Amino acid sequence: MKLDFSVAVHSILYLDAESPRKITSAELAKSLQLNPVMIRNILSVLHKQGYISGSVGKKGGYLLERDLADMNVGDLYDLTIPPILSYAKFTTGTSKGLTPNSDDPTDISGNIGETLNDLFTLADKDYRKFYHRFTMTDLKADMLNHGHFETLVN
Amino acid sequence: MKLDFSVAVHSILYLDAESPRKITSAELAKSLQLNPVMIRNILSVLHKQGYISGSVGKKGGYLLERDLADMNVGDLYDLTIPPILSYAKFTTGTSKGLTPNSDDPTDISGNIGETLNDLFTLADKDYRKFYHRFTMTDLKADMLNHGHFETLVN
Repeated sequence: MKLDFSVAVHSILYLDAESPRKITSAELAKSLQLNPVMIRNILSVLHKQGYISGSVGKKGGYLLERDLADMNVGDLYDLTIPPILSYAKFTTGTSKGLTPNSDDPTDISGNIGETLNDLFTLADKDYRKFYHRFTMTDLKADMLNHGHFETLVN
Repeated sequence: MKLDFSVAVHSILYLDAESPRKITSAELAKSLQLNPVMIRNILSVLHKQGYISGSVGKKGGYLLERDLADMNVGDLYDLTIPPILSYAKFTTGTSKGLTPNSDDPTDISGNIGETLNDLFTLADKDYRKFYHRFTMTDLKADMLNHGHFETLVN
């Protein structure tokens, strides 16, 4: 879900702004206005991938482990939003299991599902490339100066 | 919804395959395996934009009004899937009405929503460009020969 990406990005910017102070998930939850459990799930992914370090206990909390310039926005997008493996819900015609005629290429109902699935998959791949054009430094810059992204793109 | 696009594309290919026979929405519903009402809503959009003509009554039905080569897949995508105007559901931090600090650019919670909204909007714009690279002739070709899209893209 797109929200997972937003949580990751917001958390990273918050840790960056408060660095080198250790930040708890409770404090992040307040800034993100979201449930701490949800945030911890995303932080655990960021932790595993070496974006942040974390410790528990009284003086525990999270710290950033990389510079914003070394964090690609597309990498974070791919990490938090897995590609949709099947677009079955968004295609028409008979499902694969029910198509005796999918071997007949002129049978639209039996073949359009695969074509649309391929089109959507290629479009999603292309979509992700857009996010890979930016680092977290760009995202921070846009936050300090709204409209910055637009100038980068055009 | 992506499904609306699939309905439009499937209907057009079906009318093309059966041309010049007039096709009723009931017949299309059978091929699409969807409710005729939903299909009629999309057909009405295609009709207004001059993609198809339609007549009611005993000998009524729909006919294609343009060649597949003159139908851009991106135009059909834009027609059936309006851009998301607000990504509020997918962003974190305080909503606009609740942010006395959104004037302070260092307030992450008050500013990240706008930045993420801008990023997603630009990404969606870019995403649509992908579909504009194809015509309905390409879509038909992929259906007759799965993998065709992949060769066009790479």
